[in-house]
Amino acid sequence: MIGVFDSGIGGLTIVSAIRKKLGNVPIIYFGDTARTPYGNKSAETIKQYTREDINFLLEHKAKIIVAACHSASSLAHNVIHAKSNMPAFDVVDASVRAAMAATKTGRIGVIGTRATINSGIYQKLLQEASLGKNIKVFTKACPLFVPLVEENWINRPETKMIARAYLQELKVKKIDTLVLACTHYPFLRGVIASRMGKHVKLIDPGEEVAKDIESFLSKNMPELLVVSKEKGSSGISGINLHFSDTNPRQEELVHKWLAV
Amino acid sequence: MIGVFDSGIGGLTIVSAIRKKLGNVPIIYFGDTARTPYGNKSAETIKQYTREDINFLLEHKAKIIVAACHSASSLAHNVIHAKSNMPAFDVVDASVRAAMAATKTGRIGVIGTRATINSGIYQKLLQEASLGKNIKVFTKACPLFVPLVEENWINRPETKMIARAYLQELKVKKIDTLVLACTHYPFLRGVIASRMGKHVKLIDPGEEVAKDIESFLSKNMPELLVVSKEKGSSGISGINLHFSDTNPRQEELVHKWLAV
Repeated sequence: MIGVFDSGIGGLTIVSAIRKKLGNVPIIYFGDTARTPYGNKSAETIKQYTREDINFLLEHKAKIIVAACHSASSLAHNVIHAKSNMPAFDVVDASVRAAMAATKTGRIGVIGTRATINSGIYQKLLQEASLGKNIKVFTKACPLFVPLVEENWINRPETKMIARAYLQELKVKKIDTLVLACTHYPFLRGVIASRMGKHVKLIDPGEEVAKDIESFLSKNMPELLVVSKEKGSSGISGINLHFSDTNPRQEELVHKWLAV
Repeated sequence: MIGVFDSGIGGLTIVSAIRKKLGNVPIIYFGDTARTPYGNKSAETIKQYTREDINFLLEHKAKIIVAACHSASSLAHNVIHAKSNMPAFDVVDASVRAAMAATKTGRIGVIGTRATINSGIYQKLLQEASLGKNIKVFTKACPLFVPLVEENWINRPETKMIARAYLQELKVKKIDTLVLACTHYPFLRGVIASRMGKHVKLIDPGEEVAKDIESFLSKNMPELLVVSKEKGSSGISGINLHFSDTNPRQEELVHKWLAV
């Protein structure tokens, strides 16, 4: 069973990406909606919450851990990968691999929550992955993107105006690759793409972490992969959903986001 | 000692209003920054958090409780006023009193978080307070206002555009009074006022709850009021600040907001 955790419901977009790639693989999901979001919390607090989220999944028999939350993946990277006998994947590692493969000029942009951006994790991991290649990383925190997505203001003029304001300083840096380092941002892919232009490749961490998991399973548990693909993706069925808090608005979004 | 709690740092604007009105009265503040915001959580969760927040203040010798958080005041109103031997004030009661005093046409608007608005508390309490007067209440959740204030995008064109979108449906209802039912909203007073027009009276719950406390103290603890006014307001000194989480961004905002 694959255990996926997130600060809230945004990680369901990662579940959806895993399902698209791997079919009907069994998934247990934990969303910490009683304490969401993580992106405005301190590093120590995010580490503590991440430990608790992982323990919840392990107690519920998860054999593989997936950190869908960028703030957790950025600030609690060591916590996620602490146990060598527990296969763990996170959206930052997946994005770094994809960004390195995608960039031609070595000029990479990253947008995310304040916590993710201020952690400096992308600068660190991209430099480590560069192997001497000349890499320049440009980052920008975009705190308004999450509430805009949660308002469902995807294609509104207000959203385009805010995207223009946030992305301007990345645009002038002439990046050729942009990591959408927050579960909510792929919903704004259209607005972001039209602002950045066609020559900028957008990295969707959901798709990338699904590739990482597929590659791991095909080496280590090929039987699971065959069975799950035969069954095919089937929406919400086979996904064991857990939240630390629930409200009507959230239930509405859960169904919408799993169907992305 | 007056105990003030909030889901985060927004309640510091209430502290600031109390200080302006009452001078150097001793205050203990608890901000639940490890779980902020409350406005997207369920009623049960907000009640539980409110109980914990109040217990923290009582353990630290608070004699009067002030709920600065609108989501807590709306969804945990009974919890706040559960103990008859504990004087308790909240921003909703204060706003209701002020709105009833201000309105001439009986057409009252309320803007707040989704939790505050969906609670229906303003409709309920305003009707109860109307004493047969014909009252119509129009509400609108404005979830983007909090992150806009936290981004410090107070006078930007994006903010004006979003305010126009949110306030349009209240404007056409021809309200004459508008309650700013969230600690963050008074920062947008200028934008909201210019959108609504001069004939709409804006109710700032911070100012109103300070009046309620002054009235209570003058009846019950006049000595405290005399001493505190003699000392005069003195910014952050005499305020005992506690947070369940801290980060650099927060510390920056704490100092700024206490100085409002």
